[in-house]
Order: sequence, then C-alpha cells, then structure tokens
Amino acid sequence: MNILITSAGRRSYLINYFKEALNGNGEVHASNSLWSDALQCADKAVITPLINHRQYIQFLIDYCLKNKIKAIIPLFDFDLWKLSVNKEKFDKHNIKLVVSDSKVINICNDKWNTYKFLKSIKINTPESSLSILESQKKIKRGLINYPLIIKPRWGTGSLSTYQVNNYHELIILFNKIKQEIASNHIKYESSQDIEKSIIIQEKINGSEYGVDIFNDLNSNYLTSVSKKKLSMRAGETDSAIIIKNKSISIIAKTLSNKLKHVANLDVDIIYNNNKYYVIDLNCRFGGQYPFSHLAGVNFPKAIINMLNQKKVNSKFLLYNTGTIGIKQINPIILKNEVS
Amino acid sequence: MNILITSAGRRSYLINYFKEALNGNGEVHASNSLWSDALQCADKAVITPLINHRQYIQFLIDYCLKNKIKAIIPLFDFDLWKLSVNKEKFDKHNIKLVVSDSKVINICNDKWNTYKFLKSIKINTPESSLSILESQKKIKRGLINYPLIIKPRWGTGSLSTYQVNNYHELIILFNKIKQEIASNHIKYESSQDIEKSIIIQEKINGSEYGVDIFNDLNSNYLTSVSKKKLSMRAGETDSAIIIKNKSISIIAKTLSNKLKHVANLDVDIIYNNNKYYVIDLNCRFGGQYPFSHLAGVNFPKAIINMLNQKKVNSKFLLYNTGTIGIKQINPIILKNEVS
Repeated sequence: MNILITSAGRRSYLINYFKEALNGNGEVHASNSLWSDALQCADKAVITPLINHRQYIQFLIDYCLKNKIKAIIPLFDFDLWKLSVNKEKFDKHNIKLVVSDSKVINICNDKWNTYKFLKSIKINTPESSLSILESQKKIKRGLINYPLIIKPRWGTGSLSTYQVNNYHELIILFNKIKQEIASNHIKYESSQDIEKSIIIQEKINGSEYGVDIFNDLNSNYLTSVSKKKLSMRAGETDSAIIIKNKSISIIAKTLSNKLKHVANLDVDIIYNNNKYYVIDLNCRFGGQYPFSHLAGVNFPKAIINMLNQKKVNSKFLLYNTGTIGIKQINPIILKNEVS
Repeated sequence: MNILITSAGRRSYLINYFKEALNGNGEVHASNSLWSDALQCADKAVITPLINHRQYIQFLIDYCLKNKIKAIIPLFDFDLWKLSVNKEKFDKHNIKLVVSDSKVINICNDKWNTYKFLKSIKINTPESSLSILESQKKIKRGLINYPLIIKPRWGTGSLSTYQVNNYHELIILFNKIKQEIASNHIKYESSQDIEKSIIIQEKINGSEYGVDIFNDLNSNYLTSVSKKKLSMRAGETDSAIIIKNKSISIIAKTLSNKLKHVANLDVDIIYNNNKYYVIDLNCRFGGQYPFSHLAGVNFPKAIINMLNQKKVNSKFLLYNTGTIGIKQINPIILKNEVS
C-alpha cells in the first residue's frame, strides 16, 4: 500500500516513521508547496499547488490515482480542513483520508470554537474573548486580569502571539496582529470572520504539558501519551519527558469520547493551582509526537494496521515513562528537488 | 590535545565537527549550565555554574587542569565576553582561549558599538538610536522612517525583537522590551547601561545573506564563505545556499582587517537597493556555520592545525558554491546527565 503525507513541511522524522511502518510493503510519498528535507526523505515526492489554490484537491486526486496511493495523512491545520470538506471527492476514488470530520477540524482550528467546546464539556481552558470590549467587561467583572495573551484565532505555533500587560499594550498589539494576519497564510482561514479573527485569552502561568490522544479510524479511543514539556523552540516542543498522570489521562479519554477525532490529536496543557487547562487542540501529528514515539508507541504502524483492516497490534500502543526526548539539529545537504 | 567547548547549548553538530577534527587524537569536552544533546555528543561533559556566577572562571580553570584541556572554544556571546576579560587567568595555566580580544567582543555584543564601528569603517548598517527622542529627531530630519526595528542592545537571536509601524507602537513596545530584558539572562550585560539598553533601528527590507569570516589565531584573514539565507527559525538560519558575491567578499576582508577578530565571525547582512547592510556581528561559530561546513570548509580542523602550531591545510578553506543546507529535526533520546 502506498500512502501520501501532505504538507510534510519539515517533519522528515514522520516520513521516516511511516517508511519504517510500511517496511518496504509500499511507498511513502510526501507533498508540500515548497521543497524540503521531508520531501527528500520520502520514497517519492511532489510539489503541490498552494492549499487554497482551486486546483489543489484535483491535483492530489490525480497524483494519488497515478501513484496507486490508498491513503492520505495531512500534517498542517489548513490542509486538514481543506481535505475534510472535500472528503467525498476522495471517497469516490477509494482514497482514504486519515482526517477527522470537518466539524471536528472546525473545533480544533478555530480557537474560539475550541474554547466553547471545552467549556461545554467542562474541561478547564483559559477564559477567552473575541473583542477588546468583551475582554474589558470580563476584567471589570473580575473574571480575568492582565497579563493577557492575544493571538490569531486561526493561528498555529507561536505565530503572532503576544503577552499584553495593560490596556495600552492590548490596543496596540491587537492592531498589530490584524496587520500580521493580513500578510500571512492564516489570512485564508481568518477571512471566515475577519472582524473576529483575534482571540484574547487569560494567561495561565504554570508548567506546560502535552498529550497525544490516539483514536482508531472509527474514532474510538486507543491510548494517550502524556508528557511534561522541558523546553520550547519557535512555538514547538523541543524537549519533553514522558509521564503518567491521572488527571491528564481523564482529560484525554473525555476529549477522545466527546470530540470523536480520527487518529492522533495533539493537545497542549498548562498546570496551574491544581487545575489542568487545555490550551490548544491540533487534530493531527504535532510537534510532540516524536517524544511519544521515542518512548515506545508507534502510531504510524498502528495506522498502517488499520488501513490494512487488521487489528492494531497492542505493542504499538505501549510506552515507557521517564523517557526524555530532544529534537537534535542535524544539518544536511538539501539536494535539488524532483523534476 | 583535549579541547573544551563552553556554552555548547544545542550545537551538537559542532561537537561532532570537532570530534572529527581531532580524529581520536584528544577528547572533545563540552560544558553548559544545563544538560543538553550537545553534552551527550561530547567525549566528556560537565555542567558549569551560570556564566555570571563568581565561581564560573575558576570552575573552568580547575576543570581544564584536571582534564588536561589545552584550548577553550565558547559558543555564546556573554560567555565570550566573560572569558575574554579573564584571559590572563587562563594564560597563566597555558590554557588557550580561542576568543577575540575583549575590545572586539565589546564591538560585537553591544549593537550600539557595532553601529558606531561599522559607520567608522564606512560599511552600510541600519541607522540606529538609543532613545525614542533621538529616533524621533532622525525621523524629523528625514534620515529614517517607520517601520522601525527595536530590540535589546545586548540581545541575541530574535529575542524581544519587534517591528514597530508608528509612534504609539514604538512607545508601548519600547517599555515592553524593558520589562522583557529584566526577566532574561541579557539583564547581566544590559546592566552596563540599563537606561540605554534598547536599540531602535531603521528597518532594511530585502533578501538576507550571511558570511562566515575566518581569521587565524593571530587575527589574519584566511577565508570567508557567503550564503543567501533561504529560511529562518527562532531567529536562526534554518536553510541557506552557498554563493560567491564580490560585494560581500570585500565587506568580509574589510571586517577581518579592521575588527581583527580571532577564528570565526558570523555576520548577518541584508541586501536592499544595491547596498549590502551589515546587521549583526557574532564573534563566534553561529547558526550559519554548518552551511559553510556542508559546502566543504572545515574551520574546526583548521583551528586544530593552528592550536598544534601547524600551517593550516589549505583544503580546509575550500568550498563549493551552490550547496544548499538545511537543519533537519532529528528527535533522539536524551540520556541522564553525567554524575
């Protein structure tokens, strides 16, 4: 079976994990709108149009048919959304999308929906507002106070994320983020509601945690792997230690059950004053997965099992606590892109 | 000969380059105030006190004597400064510092000194000010205009660096950086002149370039390797292509000759409207060196030649243009630190 990893970006390690998972029984293809080391790692690679290009979906379908690709695994939020709303087109050609339902993607990609969803299922999350006026009302009512965090509602990573310590900073940085959104790829998703494209959140101080929550392709819970983050770089987890934590496990099972996502869900958490606050839901393999993988789980192998209609081998869900992982910087020569 | 790389941080690749350079004829030791993958890569590693700790220098001297270390190569700006002002103490014990004179470090680490130095040798650099008042005068005189870049005078990487588009943003973000400096390690160097610890610079738009300028241990020019930056991550060059560029070569030779640094100088450049502006001088191996190394030069081997009182093998200074390098993310298990 051949598979395609779209928006592969810089995640060469995931390409390698899937190559190991297929173990020669099929090819790992990787696609991206720019050439990268992840594409270089793949068995075969292709440069696609931009995700918002009107030809993107048809391009992928044509590529899959030509290369006998049976499943697509996207790695980028906007790509998840684009694929999920076009699921029927892929179904027609028997190309399986390892992607959640578009309703689920809309909860994860839109931080305002994330906030409302988490509140509705009674999971702690930072108090949030979509306007300066609303945030000021919450301050007056004593619900929140400075410092606040402001960031793009449809943002990823640490992109345009600022801490503001007072009203003046809030006004200035709110306008600054507006300009930054307009000059960034997130303008496409932000255009859904440009007047409400910035979210203002209570700042939760505390240690940062993460959890990979793994469902099967029918959205049933399989396992979760919790970790304490030890360092961050460019908004991504740079090193982490694998832990067992009852509170996080309960959150993981609740999220799995209520969100009903497909395959991996990457969740960011902050612990403060005996409470775990869920900060972010990413409905895909995220920057914390390699730490779970190094500790023993193998979600790529489990996904290949499921795509082959086999029962997931339980050893792919086992892991050791205490494992510390770090993302080493490994400079390599980037060869010319495929012609 | 054993050597010690201090403030090794996350630069495991440099540890490996030096291990290859010694080729078993001596050990590469690495030190840092926190355990990291670079320390794990070294033949031997040690956790040091913080650089500003009163025991730091004596700790290093004791460690070098105990481990028969003949030379120290620091990788972090504040460490360069601390070592350079204590050079005599190392000299006494015949421990060679591969570090420039403290006057040179003061030009590179202090962005205001960098600005004055570059102006004095007639190399283009962004017009700079140390106060809001001064920057406003320059705007009135038509010398500069918004957007401006503001950042800590003694900063590194992209730390607390903001673009400001108008006077209000300037006021607010100037105060914000002040607070950020106070809560960061750069407060130590900033304390030299805390009232003037923020620099306001003209923003130069354009393509980003970099050049490694390599002098011998007596500060004579050996070679330079120019590159065009293709992408950045967390303020560091993430991918780059090696080029030959006459204008940058002339700048490199001028800098080598006027600055009289020792070993490598990592220089950031922006090209705009037929002019090359030097943005930053880092008096050490920086984030762009691996791209030079992948293209063929081998400064670590050249340094080992020189430390062994040998002539530098000219092949260590040769390289190929057109080589594209990228920093691959390679997740690994971090073992427990040395006891």
